[in-house]
Amino acid sequence: MNHTDQPTRIAVIQPRVLEDPVINQEHAVDLIARASENGAKIICLPELYRTHYFCRVESFSRFDLAVLENHPTLVEMRDLASRLQVVLIVPFFERVAPGLYYNSAVIYDADGSVAGRYRKTHIPDDPGYYEKYYFTPGDLGIRAFNTAYGQIAVLICWDQWYPEAARLAALDGAGILFYPTAIGWHPSEKERYGTVQREAWMTVQRGHAVANACYVAAANRVGFEQSEGDPAGIEFWGTSFVAGPQGQVLACAGDAEETILFADVDWGEIETVRRNWPFLRDRRVDLYGDLTRRWREQRAENGG
Amino acid sequence: MNHTDQPTRIAVIQPRVLEDPVINQEHAVDLIARASENGAKIICLPELYRTHYFCRVESFSRFDLAVLENHPTLVEMRDLASRLQVVLIVPFFERVAPGLYYNSAVIYDADGSVAGRYRKTHIPDDPGYYEKYYFTPGDLGIRAFNTAYGQIAVLICWDQWYPEAARLAALDGAGILFYPTAIGWHPSEKERYGTVQREAWMTVQRGHAVANACYVAAANRVGFEQSEGDPAGIEFWGTSFVAGPQGQVLACAGDAEETILFADVDWGEIETVRRNWPFLRDRRVDLYGDLTRRWREQRAENGG
Repeated sequence: MNHTDQPTRIAVIQPRVLEDPVINQEHAVDLIARASENGAKIICLPELYRTHYFCRVESFSRFDLAVLENHPTLVEMRDLASRLQVVLIVPFFERVAPGLYYNSAVIYDADGSVAGRYRKTHIPDDPGYYEKYYFTPGDLGIRAFNTAYGQIAVLICWDQWYPEAARLAALDGAGILFYPTAIGWHPSEKERYGTVQREAWMTVQRGHAVANACYVAAANRVGFEQSEGDPAGIEFWGTSFVAGPQGQVLACAGDAEETILFADVDWGEIETVRRNWPFLRDRRVDLYGDLTRRWREQRAENGG
Repeated sequence: MNHTDQPTRIAVIQPRVLEDPVINQEHAVDLIARASENGAKIICLPELYRTHYFCRVESFSRFDLAVLENHPTLVEMRDLASRLQVVLIVPFFERVAPGLYYNSAVIYDADGSVAGRYRKTHIPDDPGYYEKYYFTPGDLGIRAFNTAYGQIAVLICWDQWYPEAARLAALDGAGILFYPTAIGWHPSEKERYGTVQREAWMTVQRGHAVANACYVAAANRVGFEQSEGDPAGIEFWGTSFVAGPQGQVLACAGDAEETILFADVDWGEIETVRRNWPFLRDRRVDLYGDLTRRWREQRAENGG
C-alpha cells in the first residue's frame, strides 16, 4: 500500500463501442490521452473494449477476434503507457493456442513494463452472456500488482459479484480494485427489472469497498449493440463509478453518454478507515475453511 | 430452503432500551406479542435488548448482567414462542462459567424447542465498543437453523461487516440472515461522519443479500444512552431494515422511533434470483484457500 501524501487521480473510460475494432482502438487511445491530459495516473478501459460484446451468441467465427498478448493493439497500449507515464489497464480477448482463450487484462506500468496479468476468474453463462463457450476460467489467481502509483488489483465483470475475489485482492495488498465490465439490460427486461439490477450491481461492489476499506472502480460501456443472431440486442448501462473505502460513491457516470470518469484516490484514507473499522484484525480465519466448499451440506453427505 | 407458496412474514423489533432490565424484558414481550398479532412468524430482537449497551466502558461489575441460558427471561421467551407459535431470535449476554461469557442468541422454534444457538463470532473493540473485554469469540461456528418457517441464520452486529460470515450462512442453507445489532453514533462524530457510517453499514449488508441472493434483516435499537464512566454517551441509529435477495430495501425503520418492522419473505424469490444470477454455480472454490489467511504476504514470509 502506498502512503503518499499526494492523492492519485484515476480515470475509468466509459466508451460507446462500434462494430469496427480499428475505430474502437483509435477511440480508446484518444480517450486515454484525454484522461492523461486531465491528470489521471491510472486509467482503466472496460472489458473487451475493442469489440462489440460478441458473447451474445455462440459463434465459431467470433474466436477470430482473439489476439495474442503481442498483438499490435497491445503493443500500442504498452507504448502509450510509457509515453504518457500512466498505468493502463487493458482488457483483451486473449488467444493462447487454438482452442484456448481467456477473458484477460494486462496492466502496463508507467514505464511500459508489464505490472501484471489477469484472466477473468468467474465466467458467467446465461442467456445473452454465453461466456463459458468462449473463455477458459482464469488460472492466474487473484493478485495485487505493484505499479508506479500504488498497489492495485484487476477483476473482470462477473468477478464483481464475488466477495471472495475482492477479499483475496485486498488481502494481497490492493488499495484499488478495478473492474472492467460489460453489463447491460436485455431490452425486454429493462422496464421491469432494470433499476433493481443496476442497483444490485452497484451495491455489491460498494459492499466490497466497505468490507475491505479500499477503493473500487468499475468501467462499463454504453450503447445499444445488435448483431447477426442477436435481433433483441443489449443496452449497456454505463454507470461506471468509483467508490471510496466506506462505500461512498465518489463519482458516477450516466447510463447513455460516453464519459471519462475521474476520481482522486487518497491512500491515507484507507489507513484511516481501517484503523477506525479494523475488520482485518478480527477475521476469524479459523472458521473460514468451508468457504472452499461448494455447499456445506456436503459435510453430512461425505460424512465429514 | 423452504419452497412454500406462502410468504413468511417476519418482524424485527427496534426498541428504545431503558436502564431497568425488568422493564426492557416486559417491553420486549409486549412488542413480540404485537408483532405476532400482526402476522409475524419469525421475530428478531436486537442485540443485548435487556440492558443498556454496557460495553461503553470496561467495568468489573457489569459482568453481573450475564445470565445462564436457563435464566427466567429466556424461559419466558421460550414459552412465548410456543404460545404464539412463532420463531423467536433472542440475544442475551451469556454466562457459562466464572470468567467465560459470550454475546449470544438462542433461536426458539415455534413449538418452544431450541432451533439453534449462536455466539457472536467477530468481536469488535474500539473506543466505546469494548467488547473484547466482555465476550469470548464465538465457538459454535456459523450455521443455518431449521425452523418451522424456514432455514435461517443469526449473526450479531460486528459479524455484519464480514462477507465470509454471510457466505458461510448461505452455504449452510440459510434463506434469511438475521443481524441483531447495537450500533450508533458517537455524538462528537455524528454531524461529520454519521451519514457515511450508517450508509456503509446498510450497504455492506445489502451487499451480502446480493452476493448470496438471500434476505437480510437487521434489528437495531434507538435512543441515547449514557451511564457512569460514559459522559459522552452514544446515540443508537435505529434504521433497522430488511433487504431482499437483490439487495433492495423492502422495509426500513427511522433513526429515532421505536418500531416493529415487518416484511414478507418470498422463499420462491430466492430460487428465482439464483437461477437468473447463478453466483453459487461459478464460485472458484479451487482458488479460495487464502481466505483462511490473515494476510497473503505471509506466503512470501513463510516461503509458502
